[in-house]
Amino acid sequence: MTLKREHLLLYAVTDRHAIGTRDFDAAIEAALQGGVTCLQLREKHMDEAELVKEAKRLVNICHAYGVPLIVNDNWRAALAAGADGVHVGAEDTAAAEIRKAAGSDFIIGTTAKTPAQAIAAQEGGSDYLGVGAVFPSPTKTDAKRITTAQLSEICRSVTIPAVAIGGIQAENMQELYGGGMAGIAVVSAIFAAADIRSAAQNLKQKMLEMI
Amino acid sequence: MTLKREHLLLYAVTDRHAIGTRDFDAAIEAALQGGVTCLQLREKHMDEAELVKEAKRLVNICHAYGVPLIVNDNWRAALAAGADGVHVGAEDTAAAEIRKAAGSDFIIGTTAKTPAQAIAAQEGGSDYLGVGAVFPSPTKTDAKRITTAQLSEICRSVTIPAVAIGGIQAENMQELYGGGMAGIAVVSAIFAAADIRSAAQNLKQKMLEMI
Repeated sequence: MTLKREHLLLYAVTDRHAIGTRDFDAAIEAALQGGVTCLQLREKHMDEAELVKEAKRLVNICHAYGVPLIVNDNWRAALAAGADGVHVGAEDTAAAEIRKAAGSDFIIGTTAKTPAQAIAAQEGGSDYLGVGAVFPSPTKTDAKRITTAQLSEICRSVTIPAVAIGGIQAENMQELYGGGMAGIAVVSAIFAAADIRSAAQNLKQKMLEMI
Repeated sequence: MTLKREHLLLYAVTDRHAIGTRDFDAAIEAALQGGVTCLQLREKHMDEAELVKEAKRLVNICHAYGVPLIVNDNWRAALAAGADGVHVGAEDTAAAEIRKAAGSDFIIGTTAKTPAQAIAAQEGGSDYLGVGAVFPSPTKTDAKRITTAQLSEICRSVTIPAVAIGGIQAENMQELYGGGMAGIAVVSAIFAAADIRSAAQNLKQKMLEMI
């Protein structure tokens, strides 16, 4: 799938812990029904075979909604599963190497915490940036904080679009106004919500008013 | 030079005919002083050696203002001159081939008149799009017209940014509001003006209010 700017408006990152005892696929489906525009499967403790199997199932669910599925970290698993792309850290395998192996229509997202990292990601052939943590994150307590001014500086240093990430909730997202991002990436704001579908709808509505 | 979104705000394309008997370099310098953010050297009737020589001189002028120099059509001449990039037509050598030869930090702009062309340009590794003609153009009378709705559709089909081009003047640019472009590319609106510097200043101010 070719990435469009609007795919980045409301980017949901899965979190099995936040979903808890609820049905995982039903939670994903509720997020998609609520208007999530991109889904990232993030599983830190799954072996590759299991990850491929999981991603294969989610690709079908996502594509029924016209939404790309991105796999965290493991681009080989993403390719094997027929997922749309991968998201890698600033210190992970460079985008250029993945691009060479995966071809031109595979989506590559790269984390960037500085303009220099953003420029390196763009020149390596990344399609979008993940920039954060813009707020203290309950899921990544050790993450370096990025102010809205720094977010704006990073966005302005390149042409590829960015999603802001890290502790974003309906209550604090307004603080990102003027940050220059194409959208927001959220974890618990959607998957820890009692009503996942409504939480996604509410976030999307607020983003449409803000962008 | 790494392309930033703001480089596309006011993109001037040279036109020796519009500059007329005035000094060419002085006209370029006036445009840069007026706030042009990117310069494209377009010379349709120059042999390659002459084009390289011309581009080499302009690179120095542009870089003194932190502005990238893009050469129209001829990427080999652009590379030989140390220019920052090339702009090619939708039907010209595909971005992917140029990218392979020119490396990751060479800027590639591609004309796109449809979402399909925009997607092909993005997947080929283009850094930005030129989309037009948004108005009847005095310099390209045969150019196909693109409505603002079509411009918006093309911009929304990809993540790379676009400049609108074709007959844009201070008097009609407001009609592009909502088109989703990162900036405008102009020829005669700057280089046919009696006061090139003021014309550029005026266009830039209007763009900053519009974007």
